[in-house]
Amino acid sequence: MTVSAKTAALQKADSAHYLHPFTDHVDLAKKGARIITRGEGVYVWDSEGNKILDAMSGLWCVSMGYGQKSLIDAATAQMNILPFYNSFFNTSVEPAIELSALLAEITPPQFNHVFYSSSGSESNDTILRMVRRYWDLKGEKQRKTIIGRKNGYHGSTVAGASLGGMTSMHEQGDLPIPGIVHIDQPYYRENGLKLGVSEDEFGLIAAGWLEDKIKEVGADKVAAFIGEPVQGAGGVIIPPKTYWPEIQRICDKYGILLISDEVICGFGRLGTWFGCETMGTRPDFMTFAKGVTSGYLPLGGAMVSDRVVDVLYKDGDFNHGYTYSGHPVACAVAVANIKLMKEQDIVNTVKNDTAPYLKKAWASLNDHPLVTDAQSEGMVAGLIMLKDKTKNEAFDEKDNVGMICRGHCFDNGLVMRAVGDRMIIAPPLVISHAEIDELVGLARKALDATLSDLKEKKII
Amino acid sequence: MTVSAKTAALQKADSAHYLHPFTDHVDLAKKGARIITRGEGVYVWDSEGNKILDAMSGLWCVSMGYGQKSLIDAATAQMNILPFYNSFFNTSVEPAIELSALLAEITPPQFNHVFYSSSGSESNDTILRMVRRYWDLKGEKQRKTIIGRKNGYHGSTVAGASLGGMTSMHEQGDLPIPGIVHIDQPYYRENGLKLGVSEDEFGLIAAGWLEDKIKEVGADKVAAFIGEPVQGAGGVIIPPKTYWPEIQRICDKYGILLISDEVICGFGRLGTWFGCETMGTRPDFMTFAKGVTSGYLPLGGAMVSDRVVDVLYKDGDFNHGYTYSGHPVACAVAVANIKLMKEQDIVNTVKNDTAPYLKKAWASLNDHPLVTDAQSEGMVAGLIMLKDKTKNEAFDEKDNVGMICRGHCFDNGLVMRAVGDRMIIAPPLVISHAEIDELVGLARKALDATLSDLKEKKII
Repeated sequence: MTVSAKTAALQKADSAHYLHPFTDHVDLAKKGARIITRGEGVYVWDSEGNKILDAMSGLWCVSMGYGQKSLIDAATAQMNILPFYNSFFNTSVEPAIELSALLAEITPPQFNHVFYSSSGSESNDTILRMVRRYWDLKGEKQRKTIIGRKNGYHGSTVAGASLGGMTSMHEQGDLPIPGIVHIDQPYYRENGLKLGVSEDEFGLIAAGWLEDKIKEVGADKVAAFIGEPVQGAGGVIIPPKTYWPEIQRICDKYGILLISDEVICGFGRLGTWFGCETMGTRPDFMTFAKGVTSGYLPLGGAMVSDRVVDVLYKDGDFNHGYTYSGHPVACAVAVANIKLMKEQDIVNTVKNDTAPYLKKAWASLNDHPLVTDAQSEGMVAGLIMLKDKTKNEAFDEKDNVGMICRGHCFDNGLVMRAVGDRMIIAPPLVISHAEIDELVGLARKALDATLSDLKEKKII
Repeated sequence: MTVSAKTAALQKADSAHYLHPFTDHVDLAKKGARIITRGEGVYVWDSEGNKILDAMSGLWCVSMGYGQKSLIDAATAQMNILPFYNSFFNTSVEPAIELSALLAEITPPQFNHVFYSSSGSESNDTILRMVRRYWDLKGEKQRKTIIGRKNGYHGSTVAGASLGGMTSMHEQGDLPIPGIVHIDQPYYRENGLKLGVSEDEFGLIAAGWLEDKIKEVGADKVAAFIGEPVQGAGGVIIPPKTYWPEIQRICDKYGILLISDEVICGFGRLGTWFGCETMGTRPDFMTFAKGVTSGYLPLGGAMVSDRVVDVLYKDGDFNHGYTYSGHPVACAVAVANIKLMKEQDIVNTVKNDTAPYLKKAWASLNDHPLVTDAQSEGMVAGLIMLKDKTKNEAFDEKDNVGMICRGHCFDNGLVMRAVGDRMIIAPPLVISHAEIDELVGLARKALDATLSDLKEKKII
């Protein structure tokens, strides 16, 4: 692909100096990076002037879309008055206090306290020490094991990646660290179809794997269970409706703490302020990032329930924290973002208007020859491409069908992410009906181009 | 202390909702937080209108001082054009590319590539997986152990806190994780005095502890050594001049990777762009945060040397990264910050002007009855308060002498940090001679008040 001199120079510098996340740099150097230069609403533009509908909201984060003036103004104003001060040593800053009160208001009633970090990774990493310290103080020092899920994603720090269940990450760097074990995910297509049960029956079975694991580890040794309401990076795995209530019942039965990773599902993405409300759980911790600032500035955190705070923060220092915990500028942007969400009543708009509209439009893709399981929950959606959907026959992994489709999306002006052969989206919450129609139209165009490629290559 | 109604309301909300880093919340609730509301140059103001000389640069980070217009403008401009886009999936953003090229320029010659995070913790955490993956790819899978130092600080994630040597953190949450061991720190007062050797002799002895540990672990099992050029959170522990060159020699001898944690010492703090240049080492990794943006926005990263990049990034994906890796707004602010540093020639100003001035002014405190070891290196300085300095007799820990002094500092308009009975500072690099005089004058005033307290309490 011929690009402008400016783009070529940027690509050269990029390749010479910038180590990207989760990237094959030999491949990147060959192709040259696509440089995203501008954003407005649900669209971004690249350095070649191509307009692209960003159906991934940056990376599950630009919930209120690009170009929101009130968020920018909040950052500018705070930087002018106080760009930084720490919250160690009995000091505090106004934006962190205001945000904390606001979070206590919009989160479920058991949550009244927040600990801040700068990412979802740091937030989930934080939980590991919080959970173990909690049980130490409760006099149950042996409760150290946290149970996560295969194909779950909880960030990229050593503890975050250990809590997650991504084999490709565990293989690099000697993970998981001790005291973290994983159960299978509630993915009906992978683990349910073969059982010959209904989705609802499968939900109970999949939740039962938690109870099995608790018994295997020893009920008195298990500290907590962690999961995303809907798995994001794993490929938008929407669990059966029966799954989470049963998980809650099992946690309650064994007195185990429940951690809801709300980094993707939090802040309205599922049509409720937090994903646990959609799923019907009462977690002891909620971790968050991304949507809290619409990604405009790095911010993360953990909501800590009253029953945990009453133990964890009543006995001297909890020796944990980050320089940027409660960063005044990041917190000021989060305050502006949440206020904007409230002013626009965006959570109810998603629930009652755009999510149902997306559900119907997205499901229309099920008639495509490649597509099965085009499903959504709130403003996340996924589908799987199969070689022969009448026989549930998958493509060979080496055919890289997801990558082919992702390429066609980008080339046709749509950001859609591939996870294996699943194509997934998480559009900005502010997307309109017309933009949803455009999104689904572009997705269909990319699927058609993929189908045509596969026929040409005699894969189908 | 009686405070205004506004401050009281903020303190109440703070206490009700905000979990501070490294804080005793029962104590905080009793006293009420000091709310910092405004900053300009080297000063901050609290919600009661008190003006305070911030001799800790926020938290070792506001290097260019508060109110720097060019940093604020850079953030505003970038947020308007593109507040976020990710660098996964072969995409990139201009500010991250520009910053990467700039970092390659100002760092030592072996560094041409950078990986971004949002904090020092994430940066050091990242190194653990990078180091192990590097040795895997080199065919030395057994090289897993990283050697750190007691009283070293490398952040608060599980891996960061494990690399660090803070006992109070290790005790909470079952740290360190496996494969991380620690040697004693090069702190002459603690570990050298009793040996009856000179500081230079002690430096070689302390570095030799690394060699001892390598032999203990097994030379073929050691992956890397990590250290801060000058330990910061440990209490501004300035090592003897002989220490780091000997550490380098030992790393070279055993083919072990050297990680320089530049989160505090980087970006001019020691009068060179990076602390390793002052200390005379050639690290394979440098981690950074804080000074890169003067703390205006959260940003961290790791410089990765050519010899590591050639292995680590030439064999498929390295499966690691953060949503906010290369955040465009944070990178834009870093670019503006580094440009400002270059325009003002601040690194040379520190080296040739303000650091020598601070050294002399700070050392004048050695005549105070409580004070010994008032020393500085670049723009970090520390001193220790002793019960009887003629006999090197320390105070009892329970007397909390450091806390008493810190309180007097704050009450008299100075932020100075206490680490045990060490009082430490890291003022903004832009501090003037007059402001240094003011700083040292306020420090003396606080020391006098502390002495008077101690006499009144019959501790002295």
